[in-house]
Amino acid sequence: MNTDEQQLEDHRSEEQIADLGKTLARLLEQEDVEEIERLVATQPAHELARAVSILDDEERGKLMELLDPDLAADLLERLPEVQALQLIEEAPPEVAAAVVHELPSDLQADIVGDLDLEDADAILQRLSPEEAERVRRLSEYSDEEAGGLMITEVLRYPETWTVGQVVDDFLNHADAYRDYQVQYTYVVDANDRLIGVLRLRDLLLSGRDRRLKDIMIPRPIAVNHHTTLDELYEFFQGNQFVGVPVVDDEGHLLGVVQRADVDYAWLERADRAMLKRQGIVSGEEIRSMPLLYRARARLSWLSINIVLNLMAASVISYFESTLARAIALAAFLPIISDMSGCSGNQAVGVSIRELTLGLIQPRDVLRVWLKEISVGLINGVAVGLLLGFVAFAWKGSPVLGIVVGVALMLNTMVAVSIGGLIPLILRRFGKDPAMASGPLLTTVTDMCGFFLVLSLATLALDYL
Amino acid sequence: MNTDEQQLEDHRSEEQIADLGKTLARLLEQEDVEEIERLVATQPAHELARAVSILDDEERGKLMELLDPDLAADLLERLPEVQALQLIEEAPPEVAAAVVHELPSDLQADIVGDLDLEDADAILQRLSPEEAERVRRLSEYSDEEAGGLMITEVLRYPETWTVGQVVDDFLNHADAYRDYQVQYTYVVDANDRLIGVLRLRDLLLSGRDRRLKDIMIPRPIAVNHHTTLDELYEFFQGNQFVGVPVVDDEGHLLGVVQRADVDYAWLERADRAMLKRQGIVSGEEIRSMPLLYRARARLSWLSINIVLNLMAASVISYFESTLARAIALAAFLPIISDMSGCSGNQAVGVSIRELTLGLIQPRDVLRVWLKEISVGLINGVAVGLLLGFVAFAWKGSPVLGIVVGVALMLNTMVAVSIGGLIPLILRRFGKDPAMASGPLLTTVTDMCGFFLVLSLATLALDYL
Repeated sequence: MNTDEQQLEDHRSEEQIADLGKTLARLLEQEDVEEIERLVATQPAHELARAVSILDDEERGKLMELLDPDLAADLLERLPEVQALQLIEEAPPEVAAAVVHELPSDLQADIVGDLDLEDADAILQRLSPEEAERVRRLSEYSDEEAGGLMITEVLRYPETWTVGQVVDDFLNHADAYRDYQVQYTYVVDANDRLIGVLRLRDLLLSGRDRRLKDIMIPRPIAVNHHTTLDELYEFFQGNQFVGVPVVDDEGHLLGVVQRADVDYAWLERADRAMLKRQGIVSGEEIRSMPLLYRARARLSWLSINIVLNLMAASVISYFESTLARAIALAAFLPIISDMSGCSGNQAVGVSIRELTLGLIQPRDVLRVWLKEISVGLINGVAVGLLLGFVAFAWKGSPVLGIVVGVALMLNTMVAVSIGGLIPLILRRFGKDPAMASGPLLTTVTDMCGFFLVLSLATLALDYL
Repeated sequence: MNTDEQQLEDHRSEEQIADLGKTLARLLEQEDVEEIERLVATQPAHELARAVSILDDEERGKLMELLDPDLAADLLERLPEVQALQLIEEAPPEVAAAVVHELPSDLQADIVGDLDLEDADAILQRLSPEEAERVRRLSEYSDEEAGGLMITEVLRYPETWTVGQVVDDFLNHADAYRDYQVQYTYVVDANDRLIGVLRLRDLLLSGRDRRLKDIMIPRPIAVNHHTTLDELYEFFQGNQFVGVPVVDDEGHLLGVVQRADVDYAWLERADRAMLKRQGIVSGEEIRSMPLLYRARARLSWLSINIVLNLMAASVISYFESTLARAIALAAFLPIISDMSGCSGNQAVGVSIRELTLGLIQPRDVLRVWLKEISVGLINGVAVGLLLGFVAFAWKGSPVLGIVVGVALMLNTMVAVSIGGLIPLILRRFGKDPAMASGPLLTTVTDMCGFFLVLSLATLALDYL
C-alpha cells in the first residue's frame, strides 16, 4: 500500500523534468547511482518509458548494471513489455539474471519466453535450478492462455489447517505476501489439488479454531491452464471476480489469473492487431529497435502489397486502348478505387464490431449480406449520382458522367458485400479478420472497379 | 457468488440452442413468459446478444414487457450497452422505468444519458423524485470521466462507529450489499466528506470495540469526479487497487470507480475508435439499427471522402496531355497512390503505438522524423527499384521505369514523414490521431504522388 501511495503522490506532483532522457544519459555517464535510483523511484511510469526510449543500447545496458536488481525489476514492471525486453537484452547475463529473479512470475516467463534462445539460456543458467525450471515451464505457455497469464504467487493452505493458523501465517509473512494476490486464499488437499477457496470475509467471521475444510467454499470455480484469452475475457465479463485459480489437467493448483492481467492482455492484443492492420505485420515496432530490422519488417508487407497492386493495375493496362481514347477517365480511376475501398471498409468495420460484440457468427452470411446490400444500394446510388454529376460538370460529357456514376454505384454494392462478408469468412477459417480483411477487400474492389468503369467505357466509346 | 457460479456452469455446459433468436421470437409470440425467463436466466451472454440482434423492434419491446423487471435488468447488464439502449427504447415508458430502477447506478446513468430527451424524461417522470434527481445528475457526467464511470453503491460509515457496529451492519445487510463494491469500506465525517478507508483485513484484525477513526487509513487516495478516463487508466496501471473513491470538489464521497469499469471503458473507446477509422464516423453501428440511419451515417463520411479524392484527381487532370502521350503510365497511378498510402500508414501506426505507450510526445517531431526518414530512404529505394524494374520489364521502356521508380521512391519518403508526424500534430492540437490521420495522409500522398510521377513524365516526355 505504501509504495502505491508513494507512487500516486509522485504521479500527482507531476514534477516535470525538462528532458528526463537526457538527464538520465548524463547521470549514466557520471555513474551517479544514487541520483539515478532516486529518479527511477520517483518519476511516473510514462516519463520513464519516454526516457528509456531515448537511451541508446549501451546506455540501456548500463542502466541495468547500475540499478539495484530489486529497483531494476520495479522499473521493468512499470514499462511496456517491449521496453522491458530491450533492457534485459542489453544487460550482461549475470545482471539480467539478478533482475529476472526479482520479477513476478508472469513477467519472468514473458520476458524469458520472448528472448532469443541464447540470451534465455544465459539467464536461466544463472538462476537456481528450481527457479530456472519453473521459469522455463511457464515460458512455454503462450501469452494467450491461462498458464501464460497467471501469477504463481498464490496463498495455499492444507485443508487440515485452522483459521488461527492461517491468520498467524498471514501476520508472520505480511511483508513477503505484499505482492501476493490475497483477495482469495486457496485450500489444497495432500496432493496439492485445489479443493476449496477461502474468502477474507469468511476468515473474518469464523472462530480461530475452525478448520479450513469446514469454512471453505468447496469445489471452487477454476480454469484449466490451457484456457484461452478469449475464454478468460468472457469469463470475467460474466462475473465480478478479481481472479480465478488455474489448475492443470489433474486439478493441481498452479496459480491465479487476475482480471487486470486478462484485461491488459486483451488490450495489448487489440493494439497489436491495430498495428498489424496498419501494415506492421510483425505486430510490434517501436522506433528504438534497430533501423534495418524496422525497414525489413515493413518491407515484407510492402512487397506483398506491390504484387496485389500490380494485379489490380493489370486490369487498367488491359483496357489501355479505351483509356487512350477517353483520357479524361484516368482521373476517375483512383477515385473509384478509393471510394469503393471506403464503402467496403465501413462494412468490414461493422462486421468486426458485430463479431466482437457477439451479435453475428460466421454462419450469418445471408443475414449480413442482406443488411449490407440495402445500405450499398442506397449509398451506391447516392455516391454514383454525385460523382456522375461532378464528372459531367467537370468534363462536359454526359456519357462520361453516366459511365463513371454507374461504375461507382455498382462497385459500391460489390464493395459492401465483400466488406461485410470477408470478416465472417476469415473467422470461419480461423483467421484474424482484422488483419487480412483490408488488403483482400481493396484488391478485389480495385480490380472490379477498374473493370466496371473501363468496360462500360469501352461499350460507350463512340459517345465519349 | 451463487449467481456467478450458476452463470459459469451454464457457460461451461455450452448448451447450444440451434437458433436462440428464432426460439425467442416464437416464445414472444406465444407469450410463454416462463420459458423466456428460463432462457434469459440460463443462456450465456453472447448467445443472448446474438438472439436480441435478430429480433425486430416490436419483439424487443415485447421482451421487455414480459420479463420481470429484475430479470430484464440482469439481461441489460449482460448485453453490449448499444443493445441495452435499443431494448429500453422499444419498451413502453412505465416498463422502461421499472427496469431502469433495477439497474446499477452507472448503467442507469449511461442509458438515460444516451436516450433522446423525450424518452429520458418519460422514464425519469416515473421514478421517485430522489432517484430521478440522482440519475439525472449522474447522466450529466461524460462516459469518459470518473463521475460517469463510478458506481454510487458504496459502503460508508461515520468515523464514530465501532468495528462491531460495522460487522453487524455487514451481517444484517449481507443480501442488500451483495452488489456493492466491498473490497474497501469508507469512513466519512459528519458532513459526508471522505476521511478514511477501511480494509477488510483491518476489520479482521481489530477488536469489536475499536473506533473506525482509530483503525482507518486516513487521508485515503481519491480522485476528483472530473478525472478523465486516461488519468484513471494510468492510475490503475500504476497500482494494484481494485477501485478508487470519487469525491466532488468539496471532498464529499460520491462513489467508487472500479478498475474493471475503467478497463472496459478504455476497451470500448478503442473499439469505437477503430470503427471510426474504418469510416463509421458516428463511432457505433450495429445492423439492427434502422436502415436509413445506417446509410446516412456512412454517407456522411463517403461525401467528405469524395471531395478529398476529387482534389487528388485534379492533379491527374492537370497533366492530362502528358498522360495521353504516355498512356502506359495510367496503370501505375493507383499503384503509387496505394503503395505510398501503405508506407505512410505504417508510420502512422507506429506513431500512434508510441503515443499510446508514452514513448513519444507531440514535441518529439524531429526525433520521430529522423527515425522515419531513415526507414523511408531504405524502403523507398527498395520499392522504387522493384516497381521501376517491373514497369520497365512490363512496358519495355527504361525511361518509364525510371519515372515510375523515382516517383515512388520520393513519395515513400514523403509518405513516412507525413505519416509519422501527423499523429503528433493532431495530438498537439487535441485531436484524436487515430481518427483523422488516415484521410489526411492519403489525400496529401495521393496529390504528391500523382504530381511527382506526372511532372517527371512531362520532363521525360520525349523519351517515353
